[in-house]
Parts: sequence; structure tokens; C-alpha cells
Amino acid sequence: MDRLLKELNFRDQLIPAVIVEADGGGALTLCYMNEEALRKTLSTGVIHLFRRSKGRVMQKGESSGHTQRVRELRIDCAGNSLLFVVEQRVAACHLGYGSCYFRRYDSRADALEVVEQRVFDPTEIYGEEA
Amino acid sequence: MDRLLKELNFRDQLIPAVIVEADGGGALTLCYMNEEALRKTLSTGVIHLFRRSKGRVMQKGESSGHTQRVRELRIDCAGNSLLFVVEQRVAACHLGYGSCYFRRYDSRADALEVVEQRVFDPTEIYGEEA
Repeated sequence: MDRLLKELNFRDQLIPAVIVEADGGGALTLCYMNEEALRKTLSTGVIHLFRRSKGRVMQKGESSGHTQRVRELRIDCAGNSLLFVVEQRVAACHLGYGSCYFRRYDSRADALEVVEQRVFDPTEIYGEEA
Repeated sequence: MDRLLKELNFRDQLIPAVIVEADGGGALTLCYMNEEALRKTLSTGVIHLFRRSKGRVMQKGESSGHTQRVRELRIDCAGNSLLFVVEQRVAACHLGYGSCYFRRYDSRADALEVVEQRVFDPTEIYGEEA
């Protein structure tokens, strides 16, 4: 992984990773990786991230089983971000939507609207605290 | 823009924005916006970003003319990132590629390979310092 690390710029030990679905499926989410999360992602073939709110590395979908299998890794021109093309199991968002970007902003009305259908019920997956 | 700002979490006054091409064109780049860049983006309809290396708000494509017209803005479930769907003029990357993610990482070989064709010659657009 030396060649890759040489190209990347971590800030506060983190680098943002855009996650998009394979076969033109669109953007699913954005997460952050530290070197450990990146190593685990590459060695296991499934996305691991550094969850800033918990201060630790986790497998994406650790509790839900909604994992993301890596098909391809791209890096940007400046080495400031990663782009993973993945195969998503079930859905990316913990609120039950396929993508975390399920809300569209209408700037004229200054309003947010949900523009995706829920694909699972979060309370069934995560319990009532979801 | 009050409703939108209420949902967003800026860190050090910045929020990451994923830029994807309209009509299923894929991820183009990742940039950062402060509140001023976001306001200018919404009022003009073209992407403005906060360039961290220069410490100021710029229009994307300011010198090259390779602007990005906003078709849609989505926000993530936690309000930690933005997703803009845009119509890209010419190309997103200052190195002449359609997307900034023109390099793929081959983890077995620990090597990077260019997987896009250049669509313009940067020295013709930016001069020899490109």
C-alpha cells in the first residue's frame, strides 16, 4: 500500500471517501478513513470507515449487515479524497434509504423533500433506538 | 437558505460537497464549501467552492471556463455533506480529465493507473505552469 499512501493527503489522520454504487447507481454516502480503515478495506474487500462520532474504525454495515463490497478504488488528482465503487447490500443509509442523499433541497421554497423510497424499516434492523 | 443551514454541520466553517455529473455521469470531484460559497452557488446556479490552499471562495472553472451548472442539491442523512448534481462544461479536472478520479488503484500491484482519456491539454488552458 506504500505507493497509494505516498499519494494521499490525510488531514488530522483522515481522508474523505466518496462511496458510489457500481453500474452507474449513483452516490451512496461519504465517509472518512484513517490509515487503519483504508488497510482493512483493502485487505477484506469491504468498506471500513473511521466513525468520528465514536472515535473508532468500524465495518460499514457492522450491525445491520448492509455491507459494501469494493469493486474499484479511484483517487483524485490531488490525493485529497478517495472514490470507492461498491456493491451495496440492501441499502447504504441507516434511516432505511438506498442512499444517504435521499433529501433534495428546493432553494426557492427553502424546503427539503424526500425523493427516495425507503427500502427497509430502521426499527426492525436497529431496534427502537433507530 | 435558513432551513438548509439548520440541517448542515460545518466543521471549521466547511462542509464537503460531492459533485456528480447529471444523467448518470458519475463522480467528478469533491470540494469544500463555507457558507459564502454555498450562498453563491445557490444564487448563481454554478458551483462555488472554498479553496483551502488559497483560503478564499472561487467559482469552479473561474480561470478555465469549465464551470459546473447545478441541476440538483441533495444533503445527507446527518447533514454532514452535500451532493450536487451538475452539468459540467468540458471537464472537471485541471489536469485535463473529465473527472478528478481518473486514476485507479490496483491493490495487488500497489500501482496507480490512468483509466480516463484526457479531454484537453492543460498547458493550452492554464499556460506552462499547469
